[in-house]
Amino acid sequence: MYDIAIIGGGPAGLSAAVNACRRNKKTILISKEEQSSKLTQAHSIDNYLGLPEINGADLARRMKEHALGLGTVFLKDEIQSVYRDGRNFFLTGRENTVEAAAVILAIGIAIGKEIEGEADFVGRGVSYCATCDGMFFKGKTVALIGYIPEAEREVNFLAEICQKVYFLPQYGFKGELDPKVKLWKGKPLRISGTEKVELLKTGNGDLAVDGVFIERAGRPADQLIEGLEMENGFIITDTNQATNIEGVFAAGDCTGRPWQIGRAVGQGQIAALAVVNYLET
Amino acid sequence: MYDIAIIGGGPAGLSAAVNACRRNKKTILISKEEQSSKLTQAHSIDNYLGLPEINGADLARRMKEHALGLGTVFLKDEIQSVYRDGRNFFLTGRENTVEAAAVILAIGIAIGKEIEGEADFVGRGVSYCATCDGMFFKGKTVALIGYIPEAEREVNFLAEICQKVYFLPQYGFKGELDPKVKLWKGKPLRISGTEKVELLKTGNGDLAVDGVFIERAGRPADQLIEGLEMENGFIITDTNQATNIEGVFAAGDCTGRPWQIGRAVGQGQIAALAVVNYLET
Repeated sequence: MYDIAIIGGGPAGLSAAVNACRRNKKTILISKEEQSSKLTQAHSIDNYLGLPEINGADLARRMKEHALGLGTVFLKDEIQSVYRDGRNFFLTGRENTVEAAAVILAIGIAIGKEIEGEADFVGRGVSYCATCDGMFFKGKTVALIGYIPEAEREVNFLAEICQKVYFLPQYGFKGELDPKVKLWKGKPLRISGTEKVELLKTGNGDLAVDGVFIERAGRPADQLIEGLEMENGFIITDTNQATNIEGVFAAGDCTGRPWQIGRAVGQGQIAALAVVNYLET
Repeated sequence: MYDIAIIGGGPAGLSAAVNACRRNKKTILISKEEQSSKLTQAHSIDNYLGLPEINGADLARRMKEHALGLGTVFLKDEIQSVYRDGRNFFLTGRENTVEAAAVILAIGIAIGKEIEGEADFVGRGVSYCATCDGMFFKGKTVALIGYIPEAEREVNFLAEICQKVYFLPQYGFKGELDPKVKLWKGKPLRISGTEKVELLKTGNGDLAVDGVFIERAGRPADQLIEGLEMENGFIITDTNQATNIEGVFAAGDCTGRPWQIGRAVGQGQIAALAVVNYLET
């Protein structure tokens, strides 16, 4: 049982963690990555005040060490849903459930545009979690479109279950795949079907599939928490970073543009201090 | 002639400067202090992400060096008024006038509460600028209430003009004063008079004065720019840090709570990027 659960390990989440710990709140940060891949991949960052010309990997390490040094509990998992029971929230990941009195969403933005047809087939063949939904496709043919290296673990897991698995990495893929996985080059163009997914059109030809899994750095926040108010794909917050759901706050790229480290750090701080107020009143 | 003039040399102003320079805008930062005294006086700061347990003076120096390194022009002056002429803004300081296409206010908050009666006598004996208004009190008796060391220069200037000058430092005063200045211990309690200022009540007795000068780290922003919309003493901005006046943006403590470095840095960044958009459209 934590005071504050933060979802997301980028600058917004880590800044929230630092500020929550400084206010003596029992804080857990849950991230699907050890370090923000978006930040780590940045070659050089020169607009985060006080740390000129730092490379992304160094900055990511410094930020995470800062949060850990102050007592943040770090959990590597991918939260699938958040629901409230009484006053507390329950965050269900792939492997863990976390209970906390308040939640800060710092989940970033999905890298890569939504694929045509994607939204139409969510729950009817389109899924964002192979370990959650893979069993529905036992013995069937699926494709996994991966925007981040975490996709490799997912596609190998699908290979154990499904009859045929296509993997479409949309990043510099260099990993190893289960021999059952068929590497497919080409951009995903459109997902189509009648009742359910039947076809994935790619820049390299069409694939007849029963399911399409998509692995991005972020996922739509309103799929995480029911009733969360969003606008144009971003979470709506007030100036205290509070969302429309009491006890749920949001910070960083998931709340809108500009997508910048300094903005994320500032909003993470504001969110944490607002949560402290929320918990103490 | 500059693209962007930033008023204030704290974290918000410096973050705005860094981001404006990174976008190749000709940027000037005007500050009454070499470095933010509020930041410099902080013993240890542990909640600015990525720089754990840093003392205020070190952080202030790093931040300023970052902005200077990217090409920010630094001007030590205290802006007294901002007005628009055509598309451009003219910022008038004690010693300089600066022209710029857009303005970012990062002027912080006044340290020290408003004194009882202060607001009633602005322009009728209460002044915030000795070098501007001192001559109105030639041969008269005045008091200067100082919350920051810059007050010393001001009070010595008044000693050259006025008949009698009381100095009420509200910080750890260690400087040297003109022998004509009478050091007065005690907190200012109330400014009163009929038409004009007549009396300054202090914790150490009453002073019969013709004028009261007040030297704080900040000053009310709507005294700087006519028509600027404020609420409870803070500048109102939208999510892009734009104020109600086109071309004028605001960031940091002057826009409200919480008064925190991370928030100021984030807002300074947002303001700078919004100004870039404003200038390019």
